[in-house]
Amino acid sequence: MLLPMQVHLTLPPWIGEMVDHSRRYTTDEDRMGLAIALARRNIEHGLGGPFGAAVFNAEGRVVSVGVNRVIPQTCSAAHAEMMAYMSAQQRLASYRLNANGGRYTLASSAQPCCQCYGATVWAGIDELLIGARAEDVEELTEFDEGPLPADWAGELERRGIAVRRDILRDQACDVLASYGARGASY
Amino acid sequence: MLLPMQVHLTLPPWIGEMVDHSRRYTTDEDRMGLAIALARRNIEHGLGGPFGAAVFNAEGRVVSVGVNRVIPQTCSAAHAEMMAYMSAQQRLASYRLNANGGRYTLASSAQPCCQCYGATVWAGIDELLIGARAEDVEELTEFDEGPLPADWAGELERRGIAVRRDILRDQACDVLASYGARGASY
Repeated sequence: MLLPMQVHLTLPPWIGEMVDHSRRYTTDEDRMGLAIALARRNIEHGLGGPFGAAVFNAEGRVVSVGVNRVIPQTCSAAHAEMMAYMSAQQRLASYRLNANGGRYTLASSAQPCCQCYGATVWAGIDELLIGARAEDVEELTEFDEGPLPADWAGELERRGIAVRRDILRDQACDVLASYGARGASY
Repeated sequence: MLLPMQVHLTLPPWIGEMVDHSRRYTTDEDRMGLAIALARRNIEHGLGGPFGAAVFNAEGRVVSVGVNRVIPQTCSAAHAEMMAYMSAQQRLASYRLNANGGRYTLASSAQPCCQCYGATVWAGIDELLIGARAEDVEELTEFDEGPLPADWAGELERRGIAVRRDILRDQACDVLASYGARGASY
């Protein structure tokens, strides 16, 4: 019996087509639009949950993206936000994205669950943009958001992470509803 | 500019020597002893934070282990508990460890931070064993545990995860103190 010594998480090949590297995603809506497009494409491919996320630098360039990969990677940590944080940190070779002074934003198609909430505290972002609310996720899908601090947004703000909610919320909810209508539940 | 498409996290080669596969770790203290030994060895090697964790099955066999790999892997998610969960899920080919009816325990040398707390909700364990308390971590090292729900243990209990604290707490604190005395802080 050998101990597992590594974990290899991958993003699906189609995500390369989703990002326009010549473009600057400068508004909250531009950024959220990409996160929602990733979520939508992920359920069209039928391999993951209805969640997408992307990390942007201060100029609005895409640093990394993520989609939910829990089932294809058999990994409960492989949420969209985690994939985006981890791959951004690999790219920048920094375990805290803003350690060298840059400013970074995560756009997530839905409010981070308890795990991704905690990961957000350590990832080194300056802004968190949220599409669908936790209650939307729980109403439109079978997903549970898990236990959070009562003042979860305030706790982030006090650590220097600005939180903006309800960005393109209707579009974000459309993706959740499409997913929920398929009766999927994991 | 290419989008990062994968994340590859590894455990250090020496962890193979730490586990006795012929042994059944049956008591809380047996299990915590391994988690603390991993934490101690990790700081002796000087490459990661003073944290260790291991997943055990109902018979007391080691399914996986983890140590803090934040710096060597430039990944803020690579905490000991996350490494143990992710590698156990790879080994069992299940994104929820107890989905098929087995019972699983995580022993962590210190109370999980906000990220690993959230990950614990999804990982599929039945028991969480904790060595050092959050206040020990914050007193003896520069690490912050992050924001947790006020009744964090109760939230786990309500989701079917038994929490037992202060297992070999003194030994767990010794490792934290050794680390803190080096003036390390990440």
